[in-house]
Amino acid sequence: MARELAIVLMSGGLDSAVTTGIAAQNYELAALHLNYGQRTLERELKSFNDLCDHYKIDKRLIVDIKHLAQIGGSSLTDKKLAVSKANLESEETPSSYVPFRNANFLVIATSWAEVIAANKIFVGAVDEDSSGYPDCRREFYDAFGQAIDAGTKPSTKIKIVTPIIAMKKSEIVQKGVELGVPFELTWSCYQNNDKACGVCDSCAFRLRGFQEMNVEDPIQYETRPFYQ
Amino acid sequence: MARELAIVLMSGGLDSAVTTGIAAQNYELAALHLNYGQRTLERELKSFNDLCDHYKIDKRLIVDIKHLAQIGGSSLTDKKLAVSKANLESEETPSSYVPFRNANFLVIATSWAEVIAANKIFVGAVDEDSSGYPDCRREFYDAFGQAIDAGTKPSTKIKIVTPIIAMKKSEIVQKGVELGVPFELTWSCYQNNDKACGVCDSCAFRLRGFQEMNVEDPIQYETRPFYQ
Repeated sequence: MARELAIVLMSGGLDSAVTTGIAAQNYELAALHLNYGQRTLERELKSFNDLCDHYKIDKRLIVDIKHLAQIGGSSLTDKKLAVSKANLESEETPSSYVPFRNANFLVIATSWAEVIAANKIFVGAVDEDSSGYPDCRREFYDAFGQAIDAGTKPSTKIKIVTPIIAMKKSEIVQKGVELGVPFELTWSCYQNNDKACGVCDSCAFRLRGFQEMNVEDPIQYETRPFYQ
Repeated sequence: MARELAIVLMSGGLDSAVTTGIAAQNYELAALHLNYGQRTLERELKSFNDLCDHYKIDKRLIVDIKHLAQIGGSSLTDKKLAVSKANLESEETPSSYVPFRNANFLVIATSWAEVIAANKIFVGAVDEDSSGYPDCRREFYDAFGQAIDAGTKPSTKIKIVTPIIAMKKSEIVQKGVELGVPFELTWSCYQNNDKACGVCDSCAFRLRGFQEMNVEDPIQYETRPFYQ
């Protein structure tokens, strides 16, 4: 029997790779990647294509969105703003926050889902142990799901699935190990395109996750501080 | 005292022009226009700029989004699909429906609002007497408002305002007359760039609105069927 079609938002990072591994167990996948002017655009795109090859995903949609860089407000898209070093204990919204970014991704996924008749959108958002981005919270995904129900055709039934939203980074690593996710193909660093910096928010959370599980992170880092 | 800043989504059509007229009474305005591959892109852009000049709006953001045309599924962006003639009584979703289009616009407006610290987003959506687009319904805007609250920074308070959502087209025309909205600068036709066709959904609703109010629509039409 043909498997149901699902879209996965795939940045090419650890979280989206593990989410893809989870989704691939039960769905035929279509993968969506967004270039939004982030510093590591080309490196992320390579990871996206490598992961799609690995998971044999033919339906790939790569969308260039310029407006987030045009609008600015984030160190991820505005080279005048510095990428801050990680502060894993801070509760403030960090400078890398791209205003309402995930909502921008979700609407594109929803438009695509409505056209290709996919009923699920898998998103690797993480609320626990994450960087303090407001658009990674479970309440946001619940509310956005309501907006999809209200704003799409009556015949359209699209559900957002966030299988790792409540996991710690270490649990995500563990899940990836169980599923045989090819960590070596992923890219998480916000700053560099060759060797991961090891010190930005994203590197710090990733490295801590691997360190807590005593698993070797197979990608190369400029520096590997020990995070606890 | 400086007036509060609000963003208005301005397509350049009748509805967004009247919404702008309403918003201009109480707010300093910033105007957002989206090119999404629609057939009448250049004509709409002219109306946008003419309306901004009229209302002395300096903060203008024009965003090119290619993904809606890339994704397809609508006669508005896919030249292989015909723009259907109006059926003002039908309850089906028409071929001009661009999947989840208004949500794509709203997320961009929200990202911008968060950066420029605007607390209101004015949208000229019309639920009553409209074309049967699911993303024009009041329930959709209510749900989307919840998603904004949940997905933006705690300090951000953005409210979507839909002042004409419950109006009939004739009431929108009446409101525009009261406010002195320059109808001659607007463009509503989905199909043509020179003279409005008079027969697409958008022309039909517009013409009927003017006819019901016994007001002359100052733009030029190829043909002016009488709608009742």
